[in-house]
Amino acid sequence: MSFPSGNSNCNTSRFPDPVFHPVTLELPDTFTERLTATAACVETMLDSLLDELPLSGEVCRPGRLLAAMRHAALGGSKRLRPFLLIEVARLFDRDDEGVLRAGAALECVHCYSLVHDDLPAMDDDDIRRGRPTVHRAFDEATAVLAGDALLTFAFDILADPATDEDAELRAGLTLDLARASGLGGMAGGQMLDLLGSAVSSEEEDIRRLQSMKTGALIRFATRAGARMSGGNDGDITRLTRFGEIAGLAFQLADDLLDVVGDAEALGKATGKDAVLGKATLVELNGVEWTQKTLSDLVEEADALLDSYGERAAILRQTARFIAERHS
Amino acid sequence: MSFPSGNSNCNTSRFPDPVFHPVTLELPDTFTERLTATAACVETMLDSLLDELPLSGEVCRPGRLLAAMRHAALGGSKRLRPFLLIEVARLFDRDDEGVLRAGAALECVHCYSLVHDDLPAMDDDDIRRGRPTVHRAFDEATAVLAGDALLTFAFDILADPATDEDAELRAGLTLDLARASGLGGMAGGQMLDLLGSAVSSEEEDIRRLQSMKTGALIRFATRAGARMSGGNDGDITRLTRFGEIAGLAFQLADDLLDVVGDAEALGKATGKDAVLGKATLVELNGVEWTQKTLSDLVEEADALLDSYGERAAILRQTARFIAERHS
Repeated sequence: MSFPSGNSNCNTSRFPDPVFHPVTLELPDTFTERLTATAACVETMLDSLLDELPLSGEVCRPGRLLAAMRHAALGGSKRLRPFLLIEVARLFDRDDEGVLRAGAALECVHCYSLVHDDLPAMDDDDIRRGRPTVHRAFDEATAVLAGDALLTFAFDILADPATDEDAELRAGLTLDLARASGLGGMAGGQMLDLLGSAVSSEEEDIRRLQSMKTGALIRFATRAGARMSGGNDGDITRLTRFGEIAGLAFQLADDLLDVVGDAEALGKATGKDAVLGKATLVELNGVEWTQKTLSDLVEEADALLDSYGERAAILRQTARFIAERHS
Repeated sequence: MSFPSGNSNCNTSRFPDPVFHPVTLELPDTFTERLTATAACVETMLDSLLDELPLSGEVCRPGRLLAAMRHAALGGSKRLRPFLLIEVARLFDRDDEGVLRAGAALECVHCYSLVHDDLPAMDDDDIRRGRPTVHRAFDEATAVLAGDALLTFAFDILADPATDEDAELRAGLTLDLARASGLGGMAGGQMLDLLGSAVSSEEEDIRRLQSMKTGALIRFATRAGARMSGGNDGDITRLTRFGEIAGLAFQLADDLLDVVGDAEALGKATGKDAVLGKATLVELNGVEWTQKTLSDLVEEADALLDSYGERAAILRQTARFIAERHS
């Protein structure tokens, strides 16, 4: 393996100081502007967290590893998972740096999973978000480490008192995120996905795979938002279910796009699932059933949010956005 | 990629129920017996934690991923990191399942790092502890996921109320472990190690690399033991330093063995560092300096533990064991 030489190892130069968007002020009312504004806040928070440390004798943040982590985590598009977390917290009037930090932690887990999924041993992808994947831009060893370090960093961020002064909450969020991401969550779902339909194409098995691989993190998002903003038990149950619905809709819409989507608008090839022999609910139950189910899910989301009245308008639109997205 | 077919995906068969060694009873007095008995307790705890879940509609622990994690985490030898954690806690009379869980969490991080370090893109090792490495016994994708899931599982274990009822402590341990393992800790140290002496062979840089790559987890071990067992601030500072000393001694002894060790007793090739062009303090300062430094470290450890009298006998022997080990 060869690396560029030079002393970029633990250098002392710092990235420019990030400017925080005042998340609590002048929040746009329309869904699209709000999504964009929130994504910008998440980006700024990630940029600020993934900064170099002042050089000390004891430790450093190695320049190459930090650069690979920044390549993986910055320049994201919609930041849908943090958006859900932040919007649920806004429902209960919490909108501060702590919530933004939790959103950034969640995004670190999402981004780490993309880095590892893109590896040659997994999906072997060269391009992600229009840029070279981490193992292409750097190398495979650095990509493995960057994924590892992003995953670890998520727990660093969550467990830090800067996220919330209540340790019970921090430990609870840590436990929830670990469960959502690990053996019985996202990593387990990715394993099932790699094993593929050789093992099963039963509806129950597809649902379990999807609930673990993509559902668990989305469910974490809404649940964490409710827990962080002091929602009562009823709120937490309701918004956890809202996250489950959003996760289901997200996956169905994704599978549907693979069948009927416009490859150009999507920026990626369609029909991939069929080629890979991946069992999906769309394939199993048809396009019409899928469209009907998506509209039922949006209705269920509306009903769930009923008790929050107008305050939940953005969350209602989010459910619709997820179910009806075209790219 | 090909996987064995069949329904071993989310099967319902369970591993046999583990039997817990009564850690609080009949603790052997001699160092070697104590090390062996504690390793057996850690093994049993890991075996019990890495168990299958009762099958539910929602989630499962995929059989292949669980098997790869068990391959990586079980059958370990000395379990030195958990031993340090547990022995420090015993110094303050805590010796219960919570401490054992924290030790198991730490061991999960150590084992994940071995799985990823062994990958073809990193050190490309086929054998570990006399058995095929995880990517050899399974495949590369499964090894990446097993490492990811072990790392995630460590935080699951630590943040769980079963580890300690005090959430402040659980969140604190989580934060400490994340810092010790991530960008500014073990993962960062591995990055520096991969970059190698192309970048620097200055003593300060070698020390920083080693303090991050191997030192950070050992320092976590003793610090966590002191925090978990109610040591006061002075105790925590003292035992954190004890961990630093143990980490330094561990690495120096390792480097020394690579130069003067008996390949047969070690069960691995010696002289690897020189071949790989890895800068070590032994290479920089010579064998005599290293032996003198090791004996100074043991002396410092003894002095640090002075105030604990006879109760710290096992910890004193541990420092000596680490500094003087021949394999």
